[in-house]
Amino acid sequence: MADTHFFNLHDLSQGIVRDLADGVKTRIFPGENVMVSVVRITPNRAGQIHHHPQEQWGVLLEGSGVRVQDGVEHPVKAGDFWQTPGNVPHGFIAGPDGAVILDIFSPPREEYKKGGAGFASGR
Amino acid sequence: MADTHFFNLHDLSQGIVRDLADGVKTRIFPGENVMVSVVRITPNRAGQIHHHPQEQWGVLLEGSGVRVQDGVEHPVKAGDFWQTPGNVPHGFIAGPDGAVILDIFSPPREEYKKGGAGFASGR
Repeated sequence: MADTHFFNLHDLSQGIVRDLADGVKTRIFPGENVMVSVVRITPNRAGQIHHHPQEQWGVLLEGSGVRVQDGVEHPVKAGDFWQTPGNVPHGFIAGPDGAVILDIFSPPREEYKKGGAGFASGR
Repeated sequence: MADTHFFNLHDLSQGIVRDLADGVKTRIFPGENVMVSVVRITPNRAGQIHHHPQEQWGVLLEGSGVRVQDGVEHPVKAGDFWQTPGNVPHGFIAGPDGAVILDIFSPPREEYKKGGAGFASGR
């Protein structure tokens, strides 16, 4: 019997699928206090600037890109990670090889507990 | 001026250092609702079974090992990740190449906001 607490970053059959934007797809894993989101961005695509009250952390697992946060562009490479306090506007522009990002939300974003499309948040 | 919200998994000068056990060292990054811990375990070393009320998620970034959780041994490889609900006993035994694990706590573990040694938690 599968243990429902164990997952893999690369198993695309797991998680709640959400199309955040054109070329930006995520799989959501909701917990009690934490929500994990494994985001894949195709080369040179971007997630638009948005914000939400939940604290967020991001870890760039693969690829490169530019993290736009609070109006500042931060070039990032695999292994970089960052904290985004609640309500701080942020977005991401993937580099030429795309990007795989682990996003962590706390508290969980209720609107992401079901599949769908879009960032579902304030601009 | 450095932006204090951006870090790197492999920059050992960052974070609050904590020696969890012999061969098990972490660097702690406290947030408001989330605490991130980048744990490095040398080959074949183990973090003892312990528990705490905070929810925890773990991501095996490098290496392999056995995640012991709620009395069950789960062999894991890089890319695997897991949720550990609050108060569930857990530990980790690194494989022959060691392991690098990203641990995520929510709420943050107050006892980890300062450097020190040990898991600082119930057995």
